[in-house]
Amino acid sequence: MFTPQPIGYVRSPFKETSAIPKGLGVKHDAEGVLEILRDFEPGLLDVEGFSHLFVVWVFDRSEGYELSGPTPIDHLPHGVFATRSPRRPNPIGLTVVELLRRDGGSLHVRGLDMLDGTPILDIKPYMSSIPAERLRRGWLERAEAAQASASR
Amino acid sequence: MFTPQPIGYVRSPFKETSAIPKGLGVKHDAEGVLEILRDFEPGLLDVEGFSHLFVVWVFDRSEGYELSGPTPIDHLPHGVFATRSPRRPNPIGLTVVELLRRDGGSLHVRGLDMLDGTPILDIKPYMSSIPAERLRRGWLERAEAAQASASR
Repeated sequence: MFTPQPIGYVRSPFKETSAIPKGLGVKHDAEGVLEILRDFEPGLLDVEGFSHLFVVWVFDRSEGYELSGPTPIDHLPHGVFATRSPRRPNPIGLTVVELLRRDGGSLHVRGLDMLDGTPILDIKPYMSSIPAERLRRGWLERAEAAQASASR
Repeated sequence: MFTPQPIGYVRSPFKETSAIPKGLGVKHDAEGVLEILRDFEPGLLDVEGFSHLFVVWVFDRSEGYELSGPTPIDHLPHGVFATRSPRRPNPIGLTVVELLRRDGGSLHVRGLDMLDGTPILDIKPYMSSIPAERLRRGWLERAEAAQASASR
C-alpha cells in the first residue's frame, strides 16, 4: 500500500460538522479555497482549463467505521458503500467542485462539503458525466419519492 | 492521517498496463468483478440499487510520482492534477463503473480501467452528474478539436 500525505488543505466556511448542510435535496454551493502546498504546485499545470474537479480528501476528524447505519436523509440503515458516511473503512472523501479560478497554488472553488482544514490527497479533472437519464439511485430515489408524496 | 487497507480486489481482464485502452476518445467498457472481502460485505447493503458507483483504488504497481508529464492523449506535458496519470503524490485511482449485478460480495461491473488484482479502498454511490453542457475540459477539449480537424 502507501502512506497518505496531504498535498494541501481545504479552506472552507464550515468549522464544525454540524454546519455542513445535510439531508434530502441539499445544495452544496459553499465557496472556499483548495490551498495546494508549494511543493505540489507544479502539478496544477493546466488544471484551470477544467470547469469541475474531483477532490479526494481525508475525513480527518472521523473515528472508526460502521459498515451499516442510518443516514441523515431517510433515517434508515444502508451499507457504508451505498452512502457518503464519514465513518468508512478507509476515511476517504470525494467531492466534485466547480473551479471558479486559480491563483497560483490556490484553487477557488464552489461546492465544498468539507470542514475547514481538511487534508487533500488528490485532485483529478472531471472529464465526463453519466447522463442523468441513465442513473438509478436506489434508496435515495425512494427517499425523494416518499418526501415528494408526503408534501403533496 | 490513516493507514490504507484494502476492502477488496478488482478482477479485471487487464493483466498488464499495456493492455488497458488509452488515448483520445477511448471507451472503457471492460467487464469484471469487484470482489469485496467478507469482513466488509455488510457495507454493501443497498448498493445494488445504484446503476453507477465510484471505485477508489490504489495504483499498486506504480512507483513514485511526476508533477508534470506528457499524456498518451496529446503527448504534451500537463500537471498530474489535470490528468489521470498513475504516478501521483498519493497513488489513488478513481473510476466510475456501471453496476451490472451483485452476487453477495461480488459486484459485477462494466467500465473497468484497472489491472487485475488492484486493491480497492472504497466504493461510493454515484448520486448525480454535472450536465455535459456545463463542463469545460481544457487541454482535453483542445486535443479532441485538433484530432477532429486533422481527420477532416
